[in-house]
Amino acid sequence: MVVKNFKTFSKKEKLEFLNSFDTVFSDCDGVLWLGSEVINKAPEVIKGFKEMGKRVFYLTNNSMKTPDSLSIKFQGMGFEAKKDEVLCTAMLTAQYLKMKGFNKTVYLLSSTAVKEAIEAVGISTIGHGPDIMPADIIEMKESVDIDPNVGAVVVGYDLHFSYLKLVKAAAYLSSPDVEFIATNMDPQFPIAGGRLIPGAGSFVTAVEMASGRSATVVGKPSTFAFEYVQKAFNMNPKRCLMIGDRCSTDIAFGKKTGMQTLLVLTGVQTMEHVLQFEKNKELDLVPDYYTSTIADLLEVLHMSNST
Amino acid sequence: MVVKNFKTFSKKEKLEFLNSFDTVFSDCDGVLWLGSEVINKAPEVIKGFKEMGKRVFYLTNNSMKTPDSLSIKFQGMGFEAKKDEVLCTAMLTAQYLKMKGFNKTVYLLSSTAVKEAIEAVGISTIGHGPDIMPADIIEMKESVDIDPNVGAVVVGYDLHFSYLKLVKAAAYLSSPDVEFIATNMDPQFPIAGGRLIPGAGSFVTAVEMASGRSATVVGKPSTFAFEYVQKAFNMNPKRCLMIGDRCSTDIAFGKKTGMQTLLVLTGVQTMEHVLQFEKNKELDLVPDYYTSTIADLLEVLHMSNST
Repeated sequence: MVVKNFKTFSKKEKLEFLNSFDTVFSDCDGVLWLGSEVINKAPEVIKGFKEMGKRVFYLTNNSMKTPDSLSIKFQGMGFEAKKDEVLCTAMLTAQYLKMKGFNKTVYLLSSTAVKEAIEAVGISTIGHGPDIMPADIIEMKESVDIDPNVGAVVVGYDLHFSYLKLVKAAAYLSSPDVEFIATNMDPQFPIAGGRLIPGAGSFVTAVEMASGRSATVVGKPSTFAFEYVQKAFNMNPKRCLMIGDRCSTDIAFGKKTGMQTLLVLTGVQTMEHVLQFEKNKELDLVPDYYTSTIADLLEVLHMSNST
Repeated sequence: MVVKNFKTFSKKEKLEFLNSFDTVFSDCDGVLWLGSEVINKAPEVIKGFKEMGKRVFYLTNNSMKTPDSLSIKFQGMGFEAKKDEVLCTAMLTAQYLKMKGFNKTVYLLSSTAVKEAIEAVGISTIGHGPDIMPADIIEMKESVDIDPNVGAVVVGYDLHFSYLKLVKAAAYLSSPDVEFIATNMDPQFPIAGGRLIPGAGSFVTAVEMASGRSATVVGKPSTFAFEYVQKAFNMNPKRCLMIGDRCSTDIAFGKKTGMQTLLVLTGVQTMEHVLQFEKNKELDLVPDYYTSTIADLLEVLHMSNST
C-alpha cells in the first residue's frame, strides 16, 4: 500500500510532517463538520495551524453561499475564518470570469450566491430564479428569447432548474463562442440526517448532454482555486497540505497542484475505496496520508507548541 | 469501406436485396419525415413494401405520443399506419413493465403519453405533471414524501422536469429494489426549423448522476422492441431490415438484433460519421448499406411489381 497511515507515525515523524507544510487547504463538509455538526476538536486543529503561523484556506465546492455568509457560518461553528480565507465556487466562478476579462452577460442556472458573486465583479447576469414551462411545447418553442449579449452559461446548483432553462442553456451553447462554465461537478451532497440529495453535477451533466459540449469546471478537482490564490501568495505547492474527505475532488485537486494530500475518514470515503483506486492504478485519487479524523493532528500540534 | 452503397447496385442486386427481407422496421423522424415535412416519396415506399407482402413496423424513440395518436399523425402525412404497427417508447415502456409482471406504483418523470400507456396496462403511476420547488430548500427537505408502494422510476421527456422531481427520483432510487427505467437516451431532437432541443437523454443522465445508478433503456438501441414483437411473430432477424438515420440508435439496434441495416442520409448522420465509426472499429454503428434517401428504394419496388 502506497498511502501512509498517519497514526502509525513516531513522534519524530509526526513533527517532521507538521513542519513539511506552511499552508493548509481544508475541505469543509466531511472534514470540519458534517451537516450542522462540528467534527470533534476540528476548530482546535485549525486554531493550532494558525498559531504555528500556517496559512489556512477553507476550500469548498459549495456554490450556494458567498464568502461573506460562509465566514459567518464558520465563525458560528467555532472556526476562526476571515472572508478572504474562504474559497467557495460562487466567488471562484466570478474570479474566473474576471481573470479572463469577460465583459458580456452570463446566462445563469445557479443559486443566488453565484449571481451575487458574479455581479459583485461587475459582470451582468440573466436567468436566475424560476422560469417555468408554459403548458404547451409549441408555445415554449416560440417563446424562447435569446439575448445576443450572452457570452457564457454558468451552471451550478439551481433549485429552480427547469426544462425551459435547459432549452435556453442549450440554445446559447449552440454558439461555440459562448463559454460553458460549471461551478462544480459533485453528483450529490449530504443534508441533515445523512441523506444525500442531488448536487450541481446532476444539472451540469444534463446541460452537457443537451448541448453536446463539456463544461469548464471551476471547483475541485479543477486547479483554478490554487491558480487564483497563487496570484497573491507565491506558494511552493510542495509546502502546501490539502486535507479532504473525497478522493475525486479533494485528493485529485491536491495531486494535480503538486500539494501533499491527507485523507480523513469522517466523510464520504472509506479505506476500501482507496485500496480500490490503488488497485486500479488511479493514483491521482490515492492520498499521500490518511487518518481517521482531523482531530488526530491535535496531539502533534500540542507537541509542537510545547517544544 | 465495409458499408455498401445501394445506388451502385445492379438491377439484379437491387432485386436480390429487396427479396432478402420480409419485415421492415423503419425509424420515423429523419427517415420518413423531418419535423412536419414528409420526405419525398416515403409514403409510396412504405406502401410498396406492404403491397409486396412485407410486414412494416414504425419504430420510434419518441415518448411524447401514444400509438393511437401517432398512427393518426402518420395517416395525416400519407402513411398507411395501423396502431399495432407503431412501436413507440411510451407503449414499449408499458409493455416492458407488464412483461416483467410489475405490480407496484411507478414514479414518473415523463410525458402524459407515458402515463396513459402505463395506466392502460393496469399499472398505477404518481408524479406526472408540474411539481415546483418551494422557495426554501429547508422547506423542500421536509416536504419530500416518499410513497412506499413505488417500485420503479420511469424517466422520459418531461416538460415539467424540476429539482424537486430529481430529488424524489433519487430518493426512490436509493433503494436497490426500485427499478430505474428510461424511455430512451436521445440527447436532443429536431423541431421545426431544424433547431435541436434537449431530449429525454438529458433528464435520464441527470437522474443517473443524482442517484449513482444506470437506467435500463427501453428505446433503441435497446433490443426490447424486437423481443416484444417476437412474442407475436416468430421472425428470423436475418430476414428483417432496419432503416434509420442515426447510427447510435437505429443501426446499433439493427446490429444487436441481427437484422440487416440500411442508413439513409436524410437525417442526422453523414457518411463522414460512418467512415469515422469504421476507422474507430465501432462496427456496431456501421450499417450494412446506405443510400441518400428512402426514395431510392422506389425504383426497385417498381421493378419488382412489374416482374
